[in-house]
Amino acid sequence: MAESTNMRLRLPLLCIILEVILIVLFGTLVEYNDDTDAKLWNENRNHSATRNDHENEFYYRYPSFQDVHVMIFVGFGFLMTFLQRYGFSSVGFNFLIAAFSLQWATLMQGFFHGLHHGKIHVGVTSMINADFCTGSVLISFGAVLGKTSPVQLLVMAIFEVTLFAVNEFILLSIFGANDAGGSMTIHTFGAYFGLMVTRVLYRPNLDKSKHRNSSVYHSDLFAMIGTIYLWMFWPSFNSAITNYGDPQHRTAMNTYYSLAACTLATFAFSALVNPEGKLDMVHIQNAALAGGVAVGTAGEMMLTAFGSMIVGFLAGTISVLGYKYLTPVLESKLKIQDTCGIHNLHGMPGVLGAVVGSVTAALASPEVYGHGIDFHFPTLVRTDTYVPLYPILLRLQRVFADVETGKWNPQSKGGFQAISLAVTLGMALFGGLITGLILKLPIYGAPPDTQCFEDGLYWEVPGEEESQHELYEVATSNEVEKLSS
Amino acid sequence: MAESTNMRLRLPLLCIILEVILIVLFGTLVEYNDDTDAKLWNENRNHSATRNDHENEFYYRYPSFQDVHVMIFVGFGFLMTFLQRYGFSSVGFNFLIAAFSLQWATLMQGFFHGLHHGKIHVGVTSMINADFCTGSVLISFGAVLGKTSPVQLLVMAIFEVTLFAVNEFILLSIFGANDAGGSMTIHTFGAYFGLMVTRVLYRPNLDKSKHRNSSVYHSDLFAMIGTIYLWMFWPSFNSAITNYGDPQHRTAMNTYYSLAACTLATFAFSALVNPEGKLDMVHIQNAALAGGVAVGTAGEMMLTAFGSMIVGFLAGTISVLGYKYLTPVLESKLKIQDTCGIHNLHGMPGVLGAVVGSVTAALASPEVYGHGIDFHFPTLVRTDTYVPLYPILLRLQRVFADVETGKWNPQSKGGFQAISLAVTLGMALFGGLITGLILKLPIYGAPPDTQCFEDGLYWEVPGEEESQHELYEVATSNEVEKLSS
Amino acid sequence: MAESTNMRLRLPLLCIILEVILIVLFGTLVEYNDDTDAKLWNENRNHSATRNDHENEFYYRYPSFQDVHVMIFVGFGFLMTFLQRYGFSSVGFNFLIAAFSLQWATLMQGFFHGLHHGKIHVGVTSMINADFCTGSVLISFGAVLGKTSPVQLLVMAIFEVTLFAVNEFILLSIFGANDAGGSMTIHTFGAYFGLMVTRVLYRPNLDKSKHRNSSVYHSDLFAMIGTIYLWMFWPSFNSAITNYGDPQHRTAMNTYYSLAACTLATFAFSALVNPEGKLDMVHIQNAALAGGVAVGTAGEMMLTAFGSMIVGFLAGTISVLGYKYLTPVLESKLKIQDTCGIHNLHGMPGVLGAVVGSVTAALASPEVYGHGIDFHFPTLVRTDTYVPLYPILLRLQRVFADVETGKWNPQSKGGFQAISLAVTLGMALFGGLITGLILKLPIYGAPPDTQCFEDGLYWEVPGEEESQHELYEVATSNEVEKLSS
Repeated sequence: MAESTNMRLRLPLLCIILEVILIVLFGTLVEYNDDTDAKLWNENRNHSATRNDHENEFYYRYPSFQDVHVMIFVGFGFLMTFLQRYGFSSVGFNFLIAAFSLQWATLMQGFFHGLHHGKIHVGVTSMINADFCTGSVLISFGAVLGKTSPVQLLVMAIFEVTLFAVNEFILLSIFGANDAGGSMTIHTFGAYFGLMVTRVLYRPNLDKSKHRNSSVYHSDLFAMIGTIYLWMFWPSFNSAITNYGDPQHRTAMNTYYSLAACTLATFAFSALVNPEGKLDMVHIQNAALAGGVAVGTAGEMMLTAFGSMIVGFLAGTISVLGYKYLTPVLESKLKIQDTCGIHNLHGMPGVLGAVVGSVTAALASPEVYGHGIDFHFPTLVRTDTYVPLYPILLRLQRVFADVETGKWNPQSKGGFQAISLAVTLGMALFGGLITGLILKLPIYGAPPDTQCFEDGLYWEVPGEEESQHELYEVATSNEVEKLSS
Repeated sequence: MAESTNMRLRLPLLCIILEVILIVLFGTLVEYNDDTDAKLWNENRNHSATRNDHENEFYYRYPSFQDVHVMIFVGFGFLMTFLQRYGFSSVGFNFLIAAFSLQWATLMQGFFHGLHHGKIHVGVTSMINADFCTGSVLISFGAVLGKTSPVQLLVMAIFEVTLFAVNEFILLSIFGANDAGGSMTIHTFGAYFGLMVTRVLYRPNLDKSKHRNSSVYHSDLFAMIGTIYLWMFWPSFNSAITNYGDPQHRTAMNTYYSLAACTLATFAFSALVNPEGKLDMVHIQNAALAGGVAVGTAGEMMLTAFGSMIVGFLAGTISVLGYKYLTPVLESKLKIQDTCGIHNLHGMPGVLGAVVGSVTAALASPEVYGHGIDFHFPTLVRTDTYVPLYPILLRLQRVFADVETGKWNPQSKGGFQAISLAVTLGMALFGGLITGLILKLPIYGAPPDTQCFEDGLYWEVPGEEESQHELYEVATSNEVEKLSS
Repeated sequence: MAESTNMRLRLPLLCIILEVILIVLFGTLVEYNDDTDAKLWNENRNHSATRNDHENEFYYRYPSFQDVHVMIFVGFGFLMTFLQRYGFSSVGFNFLIAAFSLQWATLMQGFFHGLHHGKIHVGVTSMINADFCTGSVLISFGAVLGKTSPVQLLVMAIFEVTLFAVNEFILLSIFGANDAGGSMTIHTFGAYFGLMVTRVLYRPNLDKSKHRNSSVYHSDLFAMIGTIYLWMFWPSFNSAITNYGDPQHRTAMNTYYSLAACTLATFAFSALVNPEGKLDMVHIQNAALAGGVAVGTAGEMMLTAFGSMIVGFLAGTISVLGYKYLTPVLESKLKIQDTCGIHNLHGMPGVLGAVVGSVTAALASPEVYGHGIDFHFPTLVRTDTYVPLYPILLRLQRVFADVETGKWNPQSKGGFQAISLAVTLGMALFGGLITGLILKLPIYGAPPDTQCFEDGLYWEVPGEEESQHELYEVATSNEVEKLSS
């Protein structure tokens, strides 16, 4: 006998407790930063002739933030509405766990990115970072889509956000890695975390819900809304937290070209792998985005449009081939039930992106970057921020970095980019394993095997009596026409 | 016998007359402002070394304007498509009355905000303000949705925009109130105006259209497009016309946190009030937005993320409870038929926002705001703009403000915020009453009680013969497969 | 016997060959520009005290670029989903040909706009220009929608992009025409090119697919997503590549007012031309946008809100009348089968826009523009860019321009705007003719007459078995309710 899926007490209790904890922690730990605080901003303005209004980071980052925000809530939310009877849950649970994750991520990232006299400072950059971390959780959501209760998803988010912040801290602050668009921190991490969770939650009898685990005509169109928004705004995603000026500009452009090339590869291989040469919506909806993932690390470097297009083309190719040939094997052999195929959209392209980033970093030279090389590949420890683990960090720096100059050289930099990928994979798989085991406890109201991919379990679903009304309408509209004539 | 609903003469006549009037008034009254006029901008640039291109207000405000624009046309438009047979009208009439209102609002607000030598000056700020005023009309539209003809809606817009401008003038220019995100001027005003109109237009036999006054599966997904866009861009809405720099940055961030907390409250209480613990799309679509409304006044103040989250959580809670328990009572006891439940989304959260704004203003101190306090709580009469009622205004200022300094002190400021709420409620209810009575005249082609919530009355609706074609398709596609093999 | 429509080899082959060519050409010809190159940007910064980060063109143009990007992929893509069984193709082929066109356009425009030491320089402005050129291809796509294979569409894009770049070069660089929003270069060109192509591809037996050449209820709502996004972001489209400061600001505002007036005209005439006074979704979806097209040339000039509203009102009027009275005649008399009615949305309003631009240019005076007149109506040859045809160009300049000052005078300027329209029409019709003849070859897998407007030919279309599942759902959800209670 399956456990009850009634959410009446479990969901409200969890939501309210979490929000109260968040509010208390925000009340004690969070402060405005220099650019959002009325007093600090006006003081800085008075002390410096160069602090004009337009130099507030808001004007450099806010348009990018809003694009990222659209990707998180519309992009991810609607991308997952492709299932015929799971649209409410796709958009709705996406909404819920994103709204929670961005708050929790602000705290976790704030703690690890460096406290200021014991306080977390917030502004548009922390908002973007929180959205990024949320993106990682939503990627994992794609793997377990249709097979989890909202309570399970919130619990997963708690653990994943926390581990995301730890991994990000190791990569960015200890290894000094570059990963502006998050090929490693967001995509690789989110994908392998989610794949491990769905592996642990393996359902041998999932085929009882098989008839719902597919799309219908209109649900595929709703999903295309998600796809197109992700595709269009990915240049903003990858460039949102790069340095000001040329890096932000260049990153957006590299991503634009990578995605364009990726799209042609996707259409090409989607038709090629189909016996009748017909295009598959699953590929178009997903693989066309792989180009954005794959330049998430190298996009801010001098990858060039040429390099970006090659990377994008490769990403689209492996993504389509993954959907066609790898996903079925993962399910049958490795018992990984990956609803949205996140391995093909975020997993493999994320790893590709990390490798490309590593190579591009190793090839960096002052001839190419000019004075920009110091901005792109800075010294390890940013001494301007207080980090709790400062002493350990300094010691690690001496082990890894070029001792004489105190700076990275491109070759060692490339090596650390590669190590970052390995660490990310390890953290994701380990974290996913633990989280999966926790989610396996029979206390969260998970759907029974016969009721997966079904909104009716957790939502009041309106009757689809349209067609009957239709008839009624036809009858009455005749009357109306008489009236209106 | 019901009156004819034929729009053939009424709608074209009204649209054309209105547009001709608008064009004539624009021709005689409207001029480019300093930042949009080729001559003035270039003169200013030449006279001042500091007027660089990037200082044109376009670059500070245009991204926010576009986000607000999306909220008005996609946000409001699609939010109302939840009805199964009223999607064309929801998006379409929203489009029509918004396109009219923004033109009319430019004139009305231009007149009351201050003429320049008898001319109205326009630029991106006037565009945002016009969109804001339009938002108020669309809120009222939500109350009468499905029960009004397009002619009635245009007539409502004429009166509501006019009164909005008067009320806004009283609040901002006479009382010197702060209300950047419009908790009072937009949400409270629009909601109570609309509720009064629908009260006057009460239809005792509306249950004859009951079967259409509900959603179907896909219509709820279309509505979620509206919801998510409103939710994402609300930070831009509240910050669009604040001062440059820290206030704009802070307002966006406070709104972001308020909405996140509101979303968790909405999911919690939606499940809690349902006997089976199932989530209700009506709540998710609407109540999750209440957090944006409720920080519309205080968001630009030093409310902090902590304060914003508390306000958002409260707003989500009262909004869900309103939908569940208050709306049925309003209809049965007070005869207020509120189709979209604007009382829960805009009414109560708007009042909450006004109260929060009043308290936050009263608590303001130079210790918290530093030099920023002068920007946030300026002297009453802005001497840089010509106001027609200048002499009366000066007298009122002497009565209300701190005579010695000529400035507001925070406590009196808080008081005036509260008075502003009372005035807004009075203006909205009175204006709604008058407008409702005018709309009751049987000359507008309003739908009969049996044909409410029905697109077919005012639109050419295509036959829904898809399912029959489907069968045909299956037959023919078999042939096609033969062809394509 | 119809040819096979199987895309298995044709589409992949074409996509891969095209992308490989693009990659090779980008590798040999394309370089970062001053604002995207790490070395150049940092050098410029060091040499000049005034080159601050915020002066990177990214911050002036990127928000506009993203709005334009949304118009290209969501706007055009969803606008065409109105067909009941062609949603996958509308969004999907739009996606494919746009992704190809923007890459090809970067090369073609880069070549004609001026090489830098034999290299094409890219940045956000080239991205916007590439999107603009893509828009022109998508307009033509609207004429042949439902009647072409994806291979045909890609071939059309190759030719159209190339010719677009030539025409744009003639207009902007040789004639020195102003056309920031592309009334001529984008809309007129794309429309008449597409109309000529569809004329050449005339199908006498298209009525065999007639039952699919119409909308259903939900498909019209999807199309409204496209309409509304185009409408909202048109101000960004027209202002995206104007000069910084007042022109960008003014263009956005003029477009905003033109569209608002156009919308009222559209509703008015849509009701007026219907015997029952009912509104037609075809008009609302399309004609309401004509106001944006019609101020594409004059929008950056001192047209004023007043002038913009008159132009918008006229555009909406002729567009509705075109849909009602002209389109049927074009089909029956001239054998032009224009699926989306691009003649009414882009053709006539584009010509109107060109005429308005010509008149507005001729009326320009230093009294109105002040020092801005030099920015708006610059000398012919921009000496700061290398143009391959420089010597020929100089000679042409001497023929056309005011010899004494070396500058245009407004009257000659107006004349050249008019000549530009004539050239555009000629180029479009000639190019469309040639391209149409090429597309007529029976090698592209075009759909047979019985299978036009049908996704199933080129897409794996999911079964629409929802209603049967529905019944199953009702049965099982009863069980679930027992479980969950």
